[in-house]
Amino acid sequence: MSQNLADPACSVLAAPLTAGEASVLASGFAALADPGRLRLLSLIADRPEVCACALVEPLGKSQPTVSHHLKVLTEAGLITGDRRGRWIWYRVVPGRLDLLRSALEQPAAVLP
Amino acid sequence: MSQNLADPACSVLAAPLTAGEASVLASGFAALADPGRLRLLSLIADRPEVCACALVEPLGKSQPTVSHHLKVLTEAGLITGDRRGRWIWYRVVPGRLDLLRSALEQPAAVLP
Repeated sequence: MSQNLADPACSVLAAPLTAGEASVLASGFAALADPGRLRLLSLIADRPEVCACALVEPLGKSQPTVSHHLKVLTEAGLITGDRRGRWIWYRVVPGRLDLLRSALEQPAAVLP
Repeated sequence: MSQNLADPACSVLAAPLTAGEASVLASGFAALADPGRLRLLSLIADRPEVCACALVEPLGKSQPTVSHHLKVLTEAGLITGDRRGRWIWYRVVPGRLDLLRSALEQPAAVLP
């Protein structure tokens, strides 16, 4: 991830994005662009950590579908998992979500 | 759009999303999930309003590609356009971006 993206000034609304900034941000938003993944993320965020085994039933999707979505969220850096025995336990990684949220913030200069 | 989504409590991180909430939010994030669209949005946000004719060169994409991305951003409610003569002038619609940003906010209850 580009160092520049940690800069709070890297907002879509603050200045024209470079191609590199846009590419990193777009890949993050792509991970959020699926209702099932958003619901999974909200289920994981609801507790300090959640066993993958507890996510299939509330999502109402098949185990392979849930596994695929968990992989996409993990690769996007939005969640991280620890394997313990048979199952992986997941938790949210706040920093990456903060970055995406910051990218949608109004720059301070134009606030009333 | 569901009335509930205007509620600031509708955050991915606040409580498990309903299928309806997740669907509306995912369609918004899908519009942001492309580097070209993010760059277009940042170019439009850089001024009060921008003529479509001024967006092709800085984006470095073909006119049909730019038109397609502008259509996707408009249908997602992120920008709006007014036709004046031959060209459409675009501006950002802040409310929809605010909704997506709010969806990524930490709920107040878990802030330090």
